Amino acid sequence: MKISNVLVVSPMHKDIQWLLSEKKIQKNFRYLPEDQVAEHDLEWADAFVAFNIKTQFDYRHVKWVHSLGAGVDSFLFKKEWPEHVLLTRTICSFGQRIAEFCLSYILKDIQFHDLFHQHKLEKHWEPMTPGLLCEQKVMIFGTGEIGQTVARILTFLGADVYGVSLSGKEKEFFTEVKSMESYEARLYEMDYIINTLPLTENTTGLFDSAFFNGVSNVGFLNVGRGASMDEEALLQALHNKQVRFAVLDVFHNEPLPEENQLWQHPKVWITPHISAVTTPSEGVDCFVDTLMKLEENQPLANKVDILKGY
Amino acid sequence: MKISNVLVVSPMHKDIQWLLSEKKIQKNFRYLPEDQVAEHDLEWADAFVAFNIKTQFDYRHVKWVHSLGAGVDSFLFKKEWPEHVLLTRTICSFGQRIAEFCLSYILKDIQFHDLFHQHKLEKHWEPMTPGLLCEQKVMIFGTGEIGQTVARILTFLGADVYGVSLSGKEKEFFTEVKSMESYEARLYEMDYIINTLPLTENTTGLFDSAFFNGVSNVGFLNVGRGASMDEEALLQALHNKQVRFAVLDVFHNEPLPEENQLWQHPKVWITPHISAVTTPSEGVDCFVDTLMKLEENQPLANKVDILKGY
Repeated sequence: MKISNVLVVSPMHKDIQWLLSEKKIQKNFRYLPEDQVAEHDLEWADAFVAFNIKTQFDYRHVKWVHSLGAGVDSFLFKKEWPEHVLLTRTICSFGQRIAEFCLSYILKDIQFHDLFHQHKLEKHWEPMTPGLLCEQKVMIFGTGEIGQTVARILTFLGADVYGVSLSGKEKEFFTEVKSMESYEARLYEMDYIINTLPLTENTTGLFDSAFFNGVSNVGFLNVGRGASMDEEALLQALHNKQVRFAVLDVFHNEPLPEENQLWQHPKVWITPHISAVTTPSEGVDCFVDTLMKLEENQPLANKVDILKGY
Repeated sequence: MKISNVLVVSPMHKDIQWLLSEKKIQKNFRYLPEDQVAEHDLEWADAFVAFNIKTQFDYRHVKWVHSLGAGVDSFLFKKEWPEHVLLTRTICSFGQRIAEFCLSYILKDIQFHDLFHQHKLEKHWEPMTPGLLCEQKVMIFGTGEIGQTVARILTFLGADVYGVSLSGKEKEFFTEVKSMESYEARLYEMDYIINTLPLTENTTGLFDSAFFNGVSNVGFLNVGRGASMDEEALLQALHNKQVRFAVLDVFHNEPLPEENQLWQHPKVWITPHISAVTTPSEGVDCFVDTLMKLEENQPLANKVDILKGY
């Protein structure tokens, strides 16, 4: 594929411009914030580079769209995609980032950070033995790039890690991978559930009250997409002690509206969609790498399967 | 070595008795709390098994003393040891336990747990990119069983790990090992310092104001012994921003007295000497393993070098 004109659309467009200028790439670049993109920009461009956009643009005239994030639901979910247009996404360090995020909250839990902090404020000395990762069972929804990196790290540290995927195909670093139809039998044994799934028709509302009825005293971590989880069902599951605590990095509406009940729940930890941030420098590196492979007709590991949606 | 009579002295002596009875070992056991041990018990015993005792007993009549903890300073530090008596200690899962403890507090820091929790209470949404372990430099004091396990885990996760030991001998999983005389040149580059050293003449007061003058904006974790760190010097270093925060699991006096200033410092995290707890079951497994090797004249990995003090 031959690319001459690249349109970069991002709130970080100035950072990206500076970083790309350092790379000395012989292309024509146009950098714009989302609300200033016009039809003639899309007609001019061969490639469209953007992160998590809100506007629905007409991509029929470009050859290639590259997402600066891992998720591509803002391009595909409940939208029509022009079949002949290539869509790629950033994969880079997301797996490691999400793994460290999840690990930090699992360790916070088994090391009793909150309890010891409370005791400290009370000047109260009361030894308790922390849990060990080798005593924990974790189920990860999604066994792709991200889910597998989380599994690799948790397995290395001794945890017993189960995967759930559409196919249920066995993968390295998982004790066992279950399909969407067969994971339920294992669910009640789990200490932690981690969702890393992309948003597709199959994963919308997956974590509903029927799901939470199958778990027992679990820590629930959502680093996939907010729309995969039913908020009301989670609050009920917390009330029923089916869920012991939840760590939520993604939400139906972001930023999470002030009136949302999740803010107030003492057993819900909220982070502002930061578990897998693309830093401008990583986003640029991944774009440049993809561009180079594309022009040399090399295989792309980050090409999106439009039908699957990831 | 032939062992017939075993004296077990511990506040957990009932748990240990129950666990040992399951092992069906053909020895005579006597189980006592520390304050009920008399001279005739020591004369009767071939082996003395205890955890972190406060009393100074006369061990000249026993053949073997086994510590249920990793540290043996309660037996050796500023005490005379009868040369012909074997001293062994528990090694088991301490390394993994301490590694998970340290990792939990490093991740808490780079993932901004406290800041995001504060924002949650304020219903405030403000994305910030967490750090990655691969961007961190960590210096571990002590490159033995425990220090090396901490290094192995941090290195696997991508951190750049430096060691400090008496000899300065290179060891696996450390980028570099420095001797006590040469580590200072590297000190100011570090993001985190972890002390895992045993208490000996060499390590008493090691972390004093001269030491803290060499660090910059560091996270300081003490999982070794309290007497290796000068508390006043730490408080001054926190005030000077040489130390950004401290996580202390060990203290000069334990339990930490209520009037101690450390309780009140907002940048000091206090845990009640739990980073490397011996559970009764692990202590018993390690004792039984050592007993078996001893009777079969196999080499002992957990034999204490009395001169070194660990």
